[in-house]
Amino acid sequence: MTADTLAPQTLLSRLSAIVGERNVLSEAADMAAYLAEPRELFHGRARCVVRPGSTAEVAAVLKLCDETHTSVVPQGGNTGLVGGQIPGQSGNADEIVLSLKRMDRVRETDTSSKTMTVEAGMTLLAVQEAAEAAGALFPLSLASEGSCTIGGNLSTNAGGTAVLAYGNARDLVTGLEVVLADGRVLSNLSKLKKDNTGYDLKHLFMGSEGTLGVITAAVVKLYPRPREMQTAFIGLKSPHEALALLNLAQALAGADVKTFELMPRFGLDIVINHAVAARDPLSSKHAWYVLLELGSQTDSGEAALMNILEQGAEQGLIDDAVVAASLDQRKDFWKLRELLSDMQKFEGGSIKHDVSVPVAKVPQFLDEVYPAVETFMPGARLVPFGHLGDGNIHCNVSQPVGMDKQAFLDRWYQMNEVVHAIVTRLDGSISAEHGIGTLKRDLLPGVKSPVALEVMRAIKAALDPKGLLNPGKVL
Amino acid sequence: MTADTLAPQTLLSRLSAIVGERNVLSEAADMAAYLAEPRELFHGRARCVVRPGSTAEVAAVLKLCDETHTSVVPQGGNTGLVGGQIPGQSGNADEIVLSLKRMDRVRETDTSSKTMTVEAGMTLLAVQEAAEAAGALFPLSLASEGSCTIGGNLSTNAGGTAVLAYGNARDLVTGLEVVLADGRVLSNLSKLKKDNTGYDLKHLFMGSEGTLGVITAAVVKLYPRPREMQTAFIGLKSPHEALALLNLAQALAGADVKTFELMPRFGLDIVINHAVAARDPLSSKHAWYVLLELGSQTDSGEAALMNILEQGAEQGLIDDAVVAASLDQRKDFWKLRELLSDMQKFEGGSIKHDVSVPVAKVPQFLDEVYPAVETFMPGARLVPFGHLGDGNIHCNVSQPVGMDKQAFLDRWYQMNEVVHAIVTRLDGSISAEHGIGTLKRDLLPGVKSPVALEVMRAIKAALDPKGLLNPGKVL
Repeated sequence: MTADTLAPQTLLSRLSAIVGERNVLSEAADMAAYLAEPRELFHGRARCVVRPGSTAEVAAVLKLCDETHTSVVPQGGNTGLVGGQIPGQSGNADEIVLSLKRMDRVRETDTSSKTMTVEAGMTLLAVQEAAEAAGALFPLSLASEGSCTIGGNLSTNAGGTAVLAYGNARDLVTGLEVVLADGRVLSNLSKLKKDNTGYDLKHLFMGSEGTLGVITAAVVKLYPRPREMQTAFIGLKSPHEALALLNLAQALAGADVKTFELMPRFGLDIVINHAVAARDPLSSKHAWYVLLELGSQTDSGEAALMNILEQGAEQGLIDDAVVAASLDQRKDFWKLRELLSDMQKFEGGSIKHDVSVPVAKVPQFLDEVYPAVETFMPGARLVPFGHLGDGNIHCNVSQPVGMDKQAFLDRWYQMNEVVHAIVTRLDGSISAEHGIGTLKRDLLPGVKSPVALEVMRAIKAALDPKGLLNPGKVL
Repeated sequence: MTADTLAPQTLLSRLSAIVGERNVLSEAADMAAYLAEPRELFHGRARCVVRPGSTAEVAAVLKLCDETHTSVVPQGGNTGLVGGQIPGQSGNADEIVLSLKRMDRVRETDTSSKTMTVEAGMTLLAVQEAAEAAGALFPLSLASEGSCTIGGNLSTNAGGTAVLAYGNARDLVTGLEVVLADGRVLSNLSKLKKDNTGYDLKHLFMGSEGTLGVITAAVVKLYPRPREMQTAFIGLKSPHEALALLNLAQALAGADVKTFELMPRFGLDIVINHAVAARDPLSSKHAWYVLLELGSQTDSGEAALMNILEQGAEQGLIDDAVVAASLDQRKDFWKLRELLSDMQKFEGGSIKHDVSVPVAKVPQFLDEVYPAVETFMPGARLVPFGHLGDGNIHCNVSQPVGMDKQAFLDRWYQMNEVVHAIVTRLDGSISAEHGIGTLKRDLLPGVKSPVALEVMRAIKAALDPKGLLNPGKVL
């Protein structure tokens, strides 16, 4: 029986029989929150939203969808920035949204194995808090952590500010529970640090944006909480000095370097001008800034930070720096970085680029992107900021002052072409941490080799032969 | 044209046309070193050994093999312990060995991006030395590092003694070049720390033991070399105290804990009794020992180690400890650990188990395995040693004194069953780091779910539809 032959009400009633009537939403008002997305680039349509409460219910829903040829769009906190979680993108109004948010329990915490087994619908913040309650650290951290879910984080291999020290989301996982397109459950909630029994299947599902299976639970790694954090806000001349400072910091403090975030003066100006109570921590202006943070188990952090700052100044890398003297001051420094993306809206339209290049090439990338953007659109104001330590720069562009916002946004893809051309030439990535989704799907063939695309399609066909999982996303 | 219809000499001459005549070995004497393996459990047969010198040659060889239905067994340093690199295991004497050893160049070193691009045939030692020459550290380290190759390490996702601090082999890679079964080259020699453009294909090939593609080159991560190492040899009562000490060490020194290796008194006795110039570092005997090593970028290591030892003693975890006062003494401590596996041969036959359990369950595993083995075979002498910090114990069993060696070895699989039953009940792995190969292939269905096996087979069929790559291994 196919979706064409199955009466819509029959599908809804069969879904209701699995998850309960109140967990099948089909009224427009009820579905609205699942169909809109934060950037308002994509507007979704769906037959219904289904909210299973257990792995067994997810499996039963997918089995039914397989039988009825119904397409499924898995969704976590609906915070994705590339449209991956939004249904109906390829014109099919009959897709269903599979919301994992009701699956929000910690199944087990094992502080001695340093693992926690969590369900996909937990918010990242709830996972962080559960780790903290167990005296440990779950290091994944990103701006939307209060509303994004760990399932979404894993299916998109989220990045964030702690990648430098702890790796991407995929690096924080030892085991995964996944429901396949036809409802089979692939369960391997392993706590093992070492296991070479066959292919490592979990890495296939992480980063595949719900196109190969639905992640329902995971075993994540816990880390010791650093006993003390040392935070410095540093003014310097250019990204060249910033990169040299990163190398110096890692040589002197190794894995204790937890944060190395870069931002230009214009970024700082935006936050100071628009955010309540934000102020410049340094007495004079600098072209670029670095937020450097060390986290240490021993009491060596303060001396290590001072050593980095002194040697950095001696080598001419640092023009000025201030060290947070209190937790409040540390929060103030972080606010300057964290509010940047939000405050940009007060400067009018913003075109985003989530790009990465090899760390050594970040200065060259920035040297090239400024004149290229100015040539393409005189007056456009670059705000490249982010994770220098990972080579990941959020190369945002604010509109020229006085330009019509829509006229600016209409040039989104052309601006992308200007920036992505430099990224590609420098062996970089056009999606460092946000994924492909719908937004960048048509760009993928331009940046991946034909063989890579063939292999991806072969795997997609092997795991989801009917093409029912998140159709039109990624591939 | 199939292997049946292609005259043997035709295949050899076509291979010679690709790699040069002297790089196609077909005489028994020339092939011998490629067909025997260190443990002498497997004896190979092959039509020839082909030694390509470049990725293009590997691609041409595989394309020819695809056309002629010729099975291919990729081989690195031929140090694998599960027979994965040995041809002719399933009775086919016409397989060819594809030796990667001629591909042994460093293609590029980038100290600022902290990456190095290496070819598959480099020995692990050569990779370590190239990193050291660049002032950096490539942390993967294992007993056979002088002869195993990085390509073999990656295709088997090797472990070793540095996993606790740096992860398994797969965690040390940012990019991979792979030749597929039909000769297509899947090249993504990326240096990026963050790249979410499509499925992460590299993790599929790492750990698949040459059954999905042939790894020809990789971009590996470099790390800062610790400025100082602090090494302690510690005597304690049982694995329970050892686990508590591990947790204490990580709480006090975090990522600076680089090594945490466990061994029983009988293991130390074996080394002392059989290795030249090995001696007990402690004045009295203890039931168990831990080799603990801290590596630090700052000068805090000595104080941190002292703090761990003092608090460990106060909490009753440590009975005695000695800190290495010189590099020579450090080497002596390591020798006690590293020679153990080799020296075991002087105690007669040894049955090996490369198992892991969740870290928290290591003490329980050891509590249970001693009586179980004694019940199964009175007098059998357990030598469980290894990487407590990863939950990976090499649970070797030396034969009872006076028993006939062959009679002992004849009970290999029954002994395995005794040990693996406990491992499986404790949610562990029967192959923590050595892989499946031929040795454990028939055990795989017993420890993986049917769904996991189905997915593995679907991926194998998608990437190697003719089943020509390392046939009969893993699956």
